[in-house]
Amino acid sequence: MYKANIRITLRPSILDPQGKAVHHALENLGEDAVKRVRMGKYVELWIDAADEARAKAIAHAACEKLLANQVMEDFVVELEEVAAEQEA
Amino acid sequence: MYKANIRITLRPSILDPQGKAVHHALENLGEDAVKRVRMGKYVELWIDAADEARAKAIAHAACEKLLANQVMEDFVVELEEVAAEQEA
Repeated sequence: MYKANIRITLRPSILDPQGKAVHHALENLGEDAVKRVRMGKYVELWIDAADEARAKAIAHAACEKLLANQVMEDFVVELEEVAAEQEA
Repeated sequence: MYKANIRITLRPSILDPQGKAVHHALENLGEDAVKRVRMGKYVELWIDAADEARAKAIAHAACEKLLANQVMEDFVVELEEVAAEQEA
């Protein structure tokens, strides 16, 4: 069993109004040292695959088919091996 | 300038209906090898701080005050040093 930790971020050229709103909220809370905020998604997939290469291919397919909008978003997949009993 | 990469995840005991919906969608797309999905948030903060310890304290304060709901969510902060010109 592999666990894929996937970070999905807006491409640098895409405006991030949610990040701007969070930035303003942090300023209002007194956190002036925060200069910029970008909001993304974090997805954890538990994948039953024979080897790491196959698990990576499945995680990339999931991102490309469903999780990420590749016009606006980038994704990074990190894989770790986990015990099968962590499956829900 | 430091960049804090923050992963915010639902605590293991909290049900994740969004993750269940994504899991079903992946099954319908033929990705049967995916056995479990959990959805979280990924937040990038650019922090102007004198040293890494101070930047870490600011990132934790931002999570505790605003970004994470500590009743239901856990967060992990990873820091990296970045050039000041990456500021927006």
